Amino acid sequence: MDKKINVTVWNEFVGEKESEAIRAVYPDGIHNAITGFLRKNENIGLLRTATLDMPEHGLTDEVLNTTDVLVWWGHTAHHLVSDEIIDKAVKRVIAGMGFIALHSSHASKIFSRLMGTDTHRLRWRESDECERVWVIDRTHPIAKGLGEYIDIKETEMYGERFGIPKPDDIVFISWYNGGEIFRSGCTFKRGFGKIFYFSPGHESCPIYYMPEIQTVINNAVEWATPICYPDFGQSHVETHMPLPGR
Amino acid sequence: MDKKINVTVWNEFVGEKESEAIRAVYPDGIHNAITGFLRKNENIGLLRTATLDMPEHGLTDEVLNTTDVLVWWGHTAHHLVSDEIIDKAVKRVIAGMGFIALHSSHASKIFSRLMGTDTHRLRWRESDECERVWVIDRTHPIAKGLGEYIDIKETEMYGERFGIPKPDDIVFISWYNGGEIFRSGCTFKRGFGKIFYFSPGHESCPIYYMPEIQTVINNAVEWATPICYPDFGQSHVETHMPLPGR
Amino acid sequence: MDKKINVTVWNEFVGEKESEAIRAVYPDGIHNAITGFLRKNENIGLLRTATLDMPEHGLTDEVLNTTDVLVWWGHTAHHLVSDEIIDKAVKRVIAGMGFIALHSSHASKIFSRLMGTDTHRLRWRESDECERVWVIDRTHPIAKGLGEYIDIKETEMYGERFGIPKPDDIVFISWYNGGEIFRSGCTFKRGFGKIFYFSPGHESCPIYYMPEIQTVINNAVEWATPICYPDFGQSHVETHMPLPGR
Amino acid sequence: MDKKINVTVWNEFVGEKESEAIRAVYPDGIHNAITGFLRKNENIGLLRTATLDMPEHGLTDEVLNTTDVLVWWGHTAHHLVSDEIIDKAVKRVIAGMGFIALHSSHASKIFSRLMGTDTHRLRWRESDECERVWVIDRTHPIAKGLGEYIDIKETEMYGERFGIPKPDDIVFISWYNGGEIFRSGCTFKRGFGKIFYFSPGHESCPIYYMPEIQTVINNAVEWATPICYPDFGQSHVETHMPLPGR
Repeated sequence: MDKKINVTVWNEFVGEKESEAIRAVYPDGIHNAITGFLRKNENIGLLRTATLDMPEHGLTDEVLNTTDVLVWWGHTAHHLVSDEIIDKAVKRVIAGMGFIALHSSHASKIFSRLMGTDTHRLRWRESDECERVWVIDRTHPIAKGLGEYIDIKETEMYGERFGIPKPDDIVFISWYNGGEIFRSGCTFKRGFGKIFYFSPGHESCPIYYMPEIQTVINNAVEWATPICYPDFGQSHVETHMPLPGR
Repeated sequence: MDKKINVTVWNEFVGEKESEAIRAVYPDGIHNAITGFLRKNENIGLLRTATLDMPEHGLTDEVLNTTDVLVWWGHTAHHLVSDEIIDKAVKRVIAGMGFIALHSSHASKIFSRLMGTDTHRLRWRESDECERVWVIDRTHPIAKGLGEYIDIKETEMYGERFGIPKPDDIVFISWYNGGEIFRSGCTFKRGFGKIFYFSPGHESCPIYYMPEIQTVINNAVEWATPICYPDFGQSHVETHMPLPGR
Repeated sequence: MDKKINVTVWNEFVGEKESEAIRAVYPDGIHNAITGFLRKNENIGLLRTATLDMPEHGLTDEVLNTTDVLVWWGHTAHHLVSDEIIDKAVKRVIAGMGFIALHSSHASKIFSRLMGTDTHRLRWRESDECERVWVIDRTHPIAKGLGEYIDIKETEMYGERFGIPKPDDIVFISWYNGGEIFRSGCTFKRGFGKIFYFSPGHESCPIYYMPEIQTVINNAVEWATPICYPDFGQSHVETHMPLPGR
Repeated sequence: MDKKINVTVWNEFVGEKESEAIRAVYPDGIHNAITGFLRKNENIGLLRTATLDMPEHGLTDEVLNTTDVLVWWGHTAHHLVSDEIIDKAVKRVIAGMGFIALHSSHASKIFSRLMGTDTHRLRWRESDECERVWVIDRTHPIAKGLGEYIDIKETEMYGERFGIPKPDDIVFISWYNGGEIFRSGCTFKRGFGKIFYFSPGHESCPIYYMPEIQTVINNAVEWATPICYPDFGQSHVETHMPLPGR
């Protein structure tokens, strides 16, 4: 790894604070559970958290401009996130920042904006049923270190049809005992930013403590690290170049 | 064809009216040049035009809700298009309406919104140079009836890097004598709507009179015709279904 | 439809003849069950069958050269199919003929050759369990007329990992009650030929009598119809062309 | 990098030996020019060369089974390569080995077999014209360290239509002054192996001495390194697994 990766983990941190059941699983919030295992990744440099209730939701220009990969967890408070902050975060993704949308962040403003479509549409059911996450593309860097599937004992069901654009790569597809399947791990690119959506992570199940899930998120952070932050001055200008060979 | 396709051709119709050079090429506006050849397509039913200066830009609920494929041409007036109308048009695409973005519509609000990224970014040059549009995927319905390439004698140059997401299919890639190439014909899907971007069509060159270009647009209209307008009530609801076989 | 589609349905017709259980379902063979419903498709012209025991397996030059779409069903006799015939059929696909591989044809010589990889690899289980075929891409022509899923009461399980290259489009993903999922409907292109793999169709279950399955195969035949049979003389030659605009 | 990458560079080394013009550019053969710069990549472990005239073309079981990435250069002698060796190399790719096909290796047996189609088909012209290799996907690991394009002063022209399947990713598209374009850098996967085709590298032009071209090949080797060599025993078997959560 040439350079350490600066990661910011954003969490709305709303429902969790109010629910005893969730606090029992994630006493310090999901963001701190995630930084808890990312902290051991020696390729990561700055590792910060940000939450809805912070000024500018913790996503000041200074934070955004020094973040290489933004991890996002939101659920009940999507509508409370400022459009102005989202504008900046979307621009930063287009400029190169990686973006990882976890679980119910499928319906977040930032993910919907980047996808350009009705990403909130899916089937769902809370019934503590089990999920088998099949690794469809074991050649993908995000699947490194995994076997053929990941079993999750208790989960929330997210089922197709899922309103995403055609993914660049489908890394995972999940099975649920109730009869549904879900494209649970998908990659996209927008501008110079790489995007990964990963559905496991219901707030009342201890899924982010599972080593295989931690492997996925660690891999995703490394995969989403920008290859370059190009100089935008070079595009959308009238252009006159000498031909090659002259 | 099971059912006639209802097509609406939208044109900002601003710069064209003001420029004698453009009026010399398209005396009745680009929209009427396009309906001129679409009119001969017997698979098309209702064929309407709409322009910026009409009430609601000609895209009333009644028009949008009865349009199967919306063709769009805009250039200098993107910023004058109402966000409210764009919201409705985007929703209609997600619900199934096909959308064809022509030439400088790469920077239109509707195309940018659907792509979720910086689609206005590209290289350009007005220098009356020539363009060779290579047909990269001759198995694509949009390429039906074409040979290996289309030569355009005078064009505006649009060059890479073009700020689009990875296309579902790249049907055309253009060559320019100044050293550039461009992914000039690309397909995307958003929700239930099919989208085609096609770059040829500079306002002061008689490109829409070329039979091969007319073939592309006719094919694109047929390709973009909705397969279904699904009932959205079925998604994003809590779902409990009997298992198959029970 | 400009021109009628000539369809040939190939079946090894080996195990079926020998098994009373299969004969009970398909007394005249699977090929005749398939032509039984294709016959009602008025876009189809010549509709022929061919089997392993015919001279040249029924795939003479004359048959291949007049076939627009070849439908294939094989299971236990893949190794008995002549390499020479397969060479010709592969060439015909590359020249434009559509190819539809059904069920256990995933391991056929022709499908493996066209995919270039280990397509025989998958999980399987015969246990008369149920399958839910989710329609992942309802905008695809192959999904026309379908709802959100197809339920199959009794089936053979085919599960991931399936050794196919990344599909151009994933139209269907199947769920099985035993914990597996499968990319059960996938498209590919090779040369000028369009290819569709569709997994439902176990020989001892009456799946090809299901109206929804018949819809899929009818749609697939229409989708796979060649857009063009290009003149190969134009490629792989030293080429000197005048520039456009000269 | 967890583990050093073992790389083998294969070259037919036939025409080169016989041509004074080529010897003037690559006195020790193209393979040694390539290992010359790969040697400086500290992520590479074993770095070997192999040529047509060696026993088993230098690709013994021992060599193949200890190669993580195979780089291939062939041109006039494709037909002299043993089918038996190709069978083994194809199997090794499917098992996980990366494969990089350079320049005229588009028509090699191994690349054609892995693609399943008519990859030898393209336009070509030897006329010492110039090439501009546009970097279409600057977020791709293979593009790391590059700018917007690479200019090559003298090259052989390779033009579309190129008979490859739809690539997983198009990293580069080349422009030629004679009016052609070419998908000059494309990725594919087959089984567990990652494949990259890169067209620059005509034998009589000193292209492999260009730093940017060396960057591409170094990046490609790292990208193509296997994520895993899975245990094939787990697939294509009858499978009975307990459900997750039980």
